[in-house]
Formats: sequence, structure tokens, C-alpha cells
Amino acid sequence: MKDKRILTGKQIAVKVGTLNIGGDNPSIMIAGPCAVESRQQVIDTALALKEVGVDVLRGGVFKPRTSPYTFQGMGLKGLEYLKEAGEKINTPIITELMDEKNLDAVVEYSDIIQIGSRNMYNYSLLKEVGGINKPILLKRGMSASIKEWVMAAEYIAAYGNNNIILCERGIRTFEVYTRNTLDLAAVPIMKSETGLPIIVDPSHGTGRKELIMPMAKGALACGADGLMVEVHIDPTEALSDGQQSLNPKEYKKMILELNRCSF
Amino acid sequence: MKDKRILTGKQIAVKVGTLNIGGDNPSIMIAGPCAVESRQQVIDTALALKEVGVDVLRGGVFKPRTSPYTFQGMGLKGLEYLKEAGEKINTPIITELMDEKNLDAVVEYSDIIQIGSRNMYNYSLLKEVGGINKPILLKRGMSASIKEWVMAAEYIAAYGNNNIILCERGIRTFEVYTRNTLDLAAVPIMKSETGLPIIVDPSHGTGRKELIMPMAKGALACGADGLMVEVHIDPTEALSDGQQSLNPKEYKKMILELNRCSF
Amino acid sequence: MKDKRILTGKQIAVKVGTLNIGGDNPSIMIAGPCAVESRQQVIDTALALKEVGVDVLRGGVFKPRTSPYTFQGMGLKGLEYLKEAGEKINTPIITELMDEKNLDAVVEYSDIIQIGSRNMYNYSLLKEVGGINKPILLKRGMSASIKEWVMAAEYIAAYGNNNIILCERGIRTFEVYTRNTLDLAAVPIMKSETGLPIIVDPSHGTGRKELIMPMAKGALACGADGLMVEVHIDPTEALSDGQQSLNPKEYKKMILELNRCSF
Amino acid sequence: MKDKRILTGKQIAVKVGTLNIGGDNPSIMIAGPCAVESRQQVIDTALALKEVGVDVLRGGVFKPRTSPYTFQGMGLKGLEYLKEAGEKINTPIITELMDEKNLDAVVEYSDIIQIGSRNMYNYSLLKEVGGINKPILLKRGMSASIKEWVMAAEYIAAYGNNNIILCERGIRTFEVYTRNTLDLAAVPIMKSETGLPIIVDPSHGTGRKELIMPMAKGALACGADGLMVEVHIDPTEALSDGQQSLNPKEYKKMILELNRCSF
Repeated sequence: MKDKRILTGKQIAVKVGTLNIGGDNPSIMIAGPCAVESRQQVIDTALALKEVGVDVLRGGVFKPRTSPYTFQGMGLKGLEYLKEAGEKINTPIITELMDEKNLDAVVEYSDIIQIGSRNMYNYSLLKEVGGINKPILLKRGMSASIKEWVMAAEYIAAYGNNNIILCERGIRTFEVYTRNTLDLAAVPIMKSETGLPIIVDPSHGTGRKELIMPMAKGALACGADGLMVEVHIDPTEALSDGQQSLNPKEYKKMILELNRCSF
Repeated sequence: MKDKRILTGKQIAVKVGTLNIGGDNPSIMIAGPCAVESRQQVIDTALALKEVGVDVLRGGVFKPRTSPYTFQGMGLKGLEYLKEAGEKINTPIITELMDEKNLDAVVEYSDIIQIGSRNMYNYSLLKEVGGINKPILLKRGMSASIKEWVMAAEYIAAYGNNNIILCERGIRTFEVYTRNTLDLAAVPIMKSETGLPIIVDPSHGTGRKELIMPMAKGALACGADGLMVEVHIDPTEALSDGQQSLNPKEYKKMILELNRCSF
Repeated sequence: MKDKRILTGKQIAVKVGTLNIGGDNPSIMIAGPCAVESRQQVIDTALALKEVGVDVLRGGVFKPRTSPYTFQGMGLKGLEYLKEAGEKINTPIITELMDEKNLDAVVEYSDIIQIGSRNMYNYSLLKEVGGINKPILLKRGMSASIKEWVMAAEYIAAYGNNNIILCERGIRTFEVYTRNTLDLAAVPIMKSETGLPIIVDPSHGTGRKELIMPMAKGALACGADGLMVEVHIDPTEALSDGQQSLNPKEYKKMILELNRCSF
Repeated sequence: MKDKRILTGKQIAVKVGTLNIGGDNPSIMIAGPCAVESRQQVIDTALALKEVGVDVLRGGVFKPRTSPYTFQGMGLKGLEYLKEAGEKINTPIITELMDEKNLDAVVEYSDIIQIGSRNMYNYSLLKEVGGINKPILLKRGMSASIKEWVMAAEYIAAYGNNNIILCERGIRTFEVYTRNTLDLAAVPIMKSETGLPIIVDPSHGTGRKELIMPMAKGALACGADGLMVEVHIDPTEALSDGQQSLNPKEYKKMILELNRCSF
């Protein structure tokens, strides 16, 4: 990769409020439901997470669903609930932005702005978030090569914003046992290629809750700066991704186990 | 695929001016440069194409490039040139739309609006073009499954527009000899699943000019309703995709060969 | 591909009895059941094929099955039945060889020796069949790159046998709608890289009987020298691959349709 | 996966001399050169490994190379050298078996018999090693699904031998930055599906020496029972796989780092 580049591998830490992500900082934990489904659900989940420990509260309000006929997210109402939940537990929040139309609202409410896997190639949107002054979490496209992912980050940086956190969430392969194939080698590669912090999403990366814990350990051992995990107050009732969501008790078990390790 | 669906397999033909695409209509030929590079280039190419025969003139003015530092297209100026070239040869034009911001301009100038491979999962954009009254050419995402492609078309239809032409342009596999793996089985599958017309792009589908002719024949034999081929007045000087573009002489040779076949 | 090579692209036709495959010869049709299941089944199928027209009778007697607990083929007894069926309709036969142990028997009975997809990387077996004096049909490995397939053929040629017929049978990708993704671009590529005849197997290449006809047409249009198609006297009763097998009536329909085309 | 199965998930530990692999035993380290190249090279490497610590000495003498014109291994002579090297450092050895022809020799000399990635679908060979009384290391086929890999192990078990060690070595995907995509989720999956010990090969899994250490840590954190790493006395002079081989000093650094971790 000899292209012109702003992100050259020099280590960058991203600041979110009082939180520092990447560099030599301790790994962080982003957790929360796949989608905000109601005020009660997101607040209950937030309180449960707070008890165990969480650094950033996640929750989708605009959902890029394969079918136009399934739940598309609560929209701005959901964003308000997520904000309220975050404030209740005194924790920054992250949500996904799908289009320029909702840019202002998401920038106003959310502490980190997520660009989802399906929009990693949406260069118009990348340019837009390159022009704002908030940290961006850039998920890897579901079949994006390392080079394409690096250059997607470069789009954001080229337009003025290098507060970028990368997120490996699995790639599409022939394997059907897991929802995606979690490519943990991307962790040391992307750190060395861009210097940016990188976190791993074992929920989407595997699609199976029993694999979240081992892959969370693997991710941190490979050098990930944090994890993003789907936690739902009651996964069996979740409107999306229930099979890959932990309940609060399982989340607690994972945190305890991770704390026992030294990587 | 038992989901709720508007596109149910009943054959739909799409009208573009006096042109009919799909159903029992003869196959059509969309040709032109990857990118509009100058007024001269697009007009010269158009005139050369006209001589051999062409149904729709293509040309990109907003280019989704992997790197932010390479040529991003001429923008609206290029759109004017493309329009002028189309009028000169009395042929409808097609160009790619990358974002809502340019929707009005593209709708005003272009006869068909292309949603490129990188935006097939851009559901916000799909909803937008679902609300307009112009034919949409929906390229398959580079690693989109059949099901996801069907549902992307369904997004457009669900928002009110079923003037949709599908375009198979190759999928991403382990193979590196070709730029993509052209999945011709998608032709009969998508026709049967949606009823929509489908064309094939052997230029992107292979990335190698010597493979365009055999794959063009293969595509039509599998039942494709047309082809989209990159033709540049001088591929060795093209700003993008030169190695997969035909010159006008090669284009003529391909058309003559295709005319000799009976599928 | 700058490696040392015997197969350099110079066109080679392979002779099987009075049949010539490749070069400028007419395309051939290899048909028969996935597996020989009984004397009656293979003879009945052969007679039905003969009526419509068939150049080589196929039938597996050693079956490389994913599970050790499913039908593994009739073995040498099945080979005798296949031979008898071939003689009854005065047609050469082809069967798969899985190991050196059965080399002599298969060489004695079969007119063409098939190396299946799962053994394309079995270099010991390739060397063995490089040492015999019979045509080899070399299927592409299910995830073999073009380069690896070329070099697998080169293994056979390097050990003395360049009577090789290639067979594209689909590659493994993320797509699950079809059993494999039929890579028809491999047809012109392999002809140009090796000069060897190449046939296409739309039965394994798609895994769905309704796709056999369109892909058969596509294959011949791309320049394939022949087809290999699974035909079973009663696919609903087949011990393997029933969902991708034609019955004799469907086979006849396909042949009539192919005869109407001119590629 | 509801098929009939011998390997049902009940934990199995495999004994190699005094070494126990899998179950609750400490993780093991298999190391050595890709290929035995000379008596001196394998003995020098063995002595260097011994100093740092190694549980099993590896070395290929039959090499499944893509091209028939590149180094194919030293054959039986190399096996004698490997045996001698193993005895010198009092460590069991492992080498790859490619065909039945060399079965007796490999069984006589080698303490573990490796079935390589290219032969995972070679069911005739799997049945053969199912009939012997030595531990088998079964590498995952380069594009084998979890289900196919489980069933390949089942072939060996069904023929009488359940002393099987699995080895994840990366799968083939669209990504070209790494040689393969190391699928670490396969570690907990295969342990839970079969109960067999599983080790990870980060050398083949990435193809890049700088990635061996992070992926080795990741593998053990995911629950791997050991590692297989390519070490060459001088990787710059290696006849194969030099770019993914550690030298003894790098190997030592990795071992020290792994010892510091607690997973």
C-alpha cells in the first residue's frame, strides 16, 4: 500500500469525554442492545450494564435491515431514549448513522458516531463525517479487504477528522456455521497500517452467543483496544439479533472472566 | 425466500423512452466510458458507439473510488457533457447516483439512474430512489447474496418505484485472476425470483478486456436482457478501468460476433 | 504465470475412441447418473440417454462423500455394470478414481478417468495418472484458483500424460442459493492458458435442476467443448444428488433446446 | 449437525509418548522447519528449539507443492534426518503423509502423522490412517466448512482411530493481505463439536512472520491446546515458506511473551 496517506501507522488515541481509546490505554467495553426498542428496555439494560461495568452504551435507532418489511429502528425518539439512558448511568453513547439527513441529530445526541458495515463503501457519507468534530467508529465492510478498509478510514481523515476507531466485525466467507468469520489478524494489521485504535465485535463476528466469550478473549489477546458486545435485558424477546446477544448475567460472567486474564 | 414481497416473479418490462427492456424484448446494449473525462472524450465515444449501434449511453460523473486521492469524477459538469453526448446521438443516458444530495440533478439529466455496487446496501438511498419516477439500474453488491439483492430491489419497490433493471457485475471470491467472479447463474435466478429485467456487466465482471466477448455471449445465452460494456475512445489513456475497456473497433467486433449468434 | 510449463496454450484435442474433444471439434455431451446404484438403473439410464444422444456415459462407483456413514458407491461391481451399460449403447464411459489402489481396475474398465474436485490437490494421485495412457478428466478443486488448477494439470502432463480434459464444476463462495458458483470465465481462461479442452458441469455447478439448461447454454456460448450432466432414470429415488439430476425427458428437452442455438 | 457420529463432544486427550494433548493439559508447542532440507539444517534447528523449549519437532519430507517443478521434499532420506534430530533432543516428531504408498515408512518413523490441508478431502487416505495405531494431526482443508472438517475427523474415527488432533491453519477468503484468514472461532467450535484437541498454525494461517506472535496469543486465548509454528535456522535461505518462518531468536521471544500471559 504505497498510496498517499494521512494515517501512516503512528499511534493515535481517541478521546471520548474522559475516556481514552487506543494507544497504551486499557481496553474499553462498549455494550448495549442491537436496537433501542423502548425507553424501558434501554434504560433497564443500561442500569444492568452499569452494575457490571461499561465504558460506552450502544443502541441502534436507524437499523439497516435486509428487508424493508422488518423493524427499521425507532428513529429520533429512540435516540432520545438512548441519550437519557446514557445520562442515567453517566456513560457516553454510540449509535449508527445511515445518511446525511440525520447527521445533525446524531451529532447532537451521540458521543461516538458509528458507520456500519453496509456503509463502509458509502464514500459520500464518509466525507460528511470527515467534516464533523466527533469520534467515528468505522466498521469493516462485510467483504472489505484490508486495503479498502484502510482507505475508507483515509476518506474520513482526508476530510478533516482523524478521531477514528476501527471495528472488526467479521467478514463474509463460505462458512455458514458462524454468521461471519471473525478476522482477528485484522487487529494487529490495522493497528500497524493506520495507528488507529481498533475494537472487535464478537457478537456480529460470530452470530452465536456461546462464542462471544472465547472470541472476546482472543480479540484482546491479539491486541484489540476494546470490545463491542450486544447485551439485551431479555435476548429471547429482542426484535433483532437475539441469538447473538448476552443477557446481563452472561455479560457479567464474561467481564469477570476477562478480568482474570492477563494478555 | 418466504418474506413478504412485491416483486414476485411476474415478468416486468421497463420502459426507457421508446426502449423496452426485459420481458420478450430484444436484448439491449449499454455502452460508454467508465468515467466522463472531458466533453471531447464523451462526445467522441458516443459518436463512435452510434456508428456501431448502442441503446443507452453510460458514463460516470460521481465515481466511488477506493482512494480519496484518485479521480472522483467530473461531477455536474460531466453530467452536462454526458447529456449533450446522448442528445447528439439521440440515445438515452445512464449515470450513477451516490447520494441524496445529487438526486435532483441526476433525476433531471439522466434517463436511467444507476445505484452502484458499493451502494446496494445503502438503504437510505434505495428508499430515496424508490420515491422517484425514473428507471433504476440496481447493481449487485460485490458480495451480496441473491437474497440480499432481491430485498434491495424490494426496498425500491416498497417505496413506490418498480421500474428496476438489475445488473450482475461479478462477486468477490478467492479468485484473483479476474477482478470479480461473474455469477451468470444469477441471471435466470433473479429473473425467476423477481420478474425484473437483468443485464450483465462483463467489464467489471472480469476486469480483463479479452474476456468481455466470451462472457457477453455467455450472459445472453443464459437469458440476460442486455449488456453493459465499458468503451473508451482510447483505453490506454483512460483515467479509470482502462484494462477492462474496449476501444470502438473492439466494440464493433463484439457486436458483429453477437449478431451472428442465436441463443 | 511465468512458471515453467508444458501446457502453454497451444490447442490440444483429446481422442477417446473415435471421439475428438476440444480444438475445433463439436461439443460433446457426457451424461449419466451421479452414482451407479444397480445394474438395472445404469442400463436403463444408458438406454434412455442413447435414444436422445450421448457421447460419453458417466457413473460414479467410488463416491467421495462428506460423511463416512452415507452410501460410498458400489465399487468394482458397479464398474462392471457401467462398462456393460456403455457397451450396450456403444459409448465410452467415465468414472472417478479416488486412490492408487483402484488405479489398475479403473484403467482397465474406464475410457476416461475422472479426478474429482476433492482430489485436485492430491498430487500423489495426479502423478500416478500422469503415468498412464488414458485420457484424464480433471475437475477443478472446489476452491482452486486458476493458477492452482493449471498447475494440477501440469502435474499430470509433467509425468507424461497430456490427454487431459478440464472440467469447471463451480467454486465455493459466500452464496448459498446455489450449491456452488459456476465460474464460466474459467472456460476462456483455461483454454487460453493451457490449450486443453474444457467442459462444464452445470449439475454440480448449480445444484439445482432448473438452472442446468440456462447454464448449459451459457457454458457452450463461452466456448466450452462439452457438458457433463447428471441424468437419473428417476431423480426422486436417487441415492445422491437427486435435486440436481435431470430425468430422461428433461434431458431430451435440454438437448433439443441446445440444438436450436448457434453460439 | 444431526448425523450419526462417534466424536460427540466428549473431551478426548491424545497421548504422544509422555505428552498429553488436549483436555485440561497445558498447551503444547510444535515447531520446526517447513521442510527438511538437509541433515545439518534439521539438527541445527532442533538444537536451537530444544534450548528454548519445544514439545514436538515438525518437518516436511513429502511436500504438496502447487507446482510440480518446485522442491518436492527429501522423501525417506529426510525422514531419517528428522528422526535423528528428534532423538537428539529427545522429542517426538511429526511429518506429513501424502499417500498410502509411504504409509508404512511414516508410521514407523513418525510419532504423529499429519494429514495436510490439501488431503483433508482425500477420504481414501483418511480411511487408511483410521486403520493405524498412531496419533493423527488433521489439518482443516483450505476451504473446508466446519461440518466437512468434523466429518473428515469422523472418517478417521469410523475406521478405528480416535487419536486425532485437529489443526486450524486458516481458510481461503477474498482477503489477499494475509495468505489465509485464520478462523479462530473454529477453536471453540471444534472443541465443542468433537471434543478433540485442537492446535493452531499461525504461520500458514497468516503467511507473515510479524503476525505469528499476536495470532499465537489469540489462539491460546480462544482455547487452543497448542500451536504449530514454522521455525528455520535461517528463514532467508529456506526452500519454502521463508516469509512465514521465525528464526530461533524470534521463536524465543515469542515463547517468553506467551509465558508472560495468563489466558
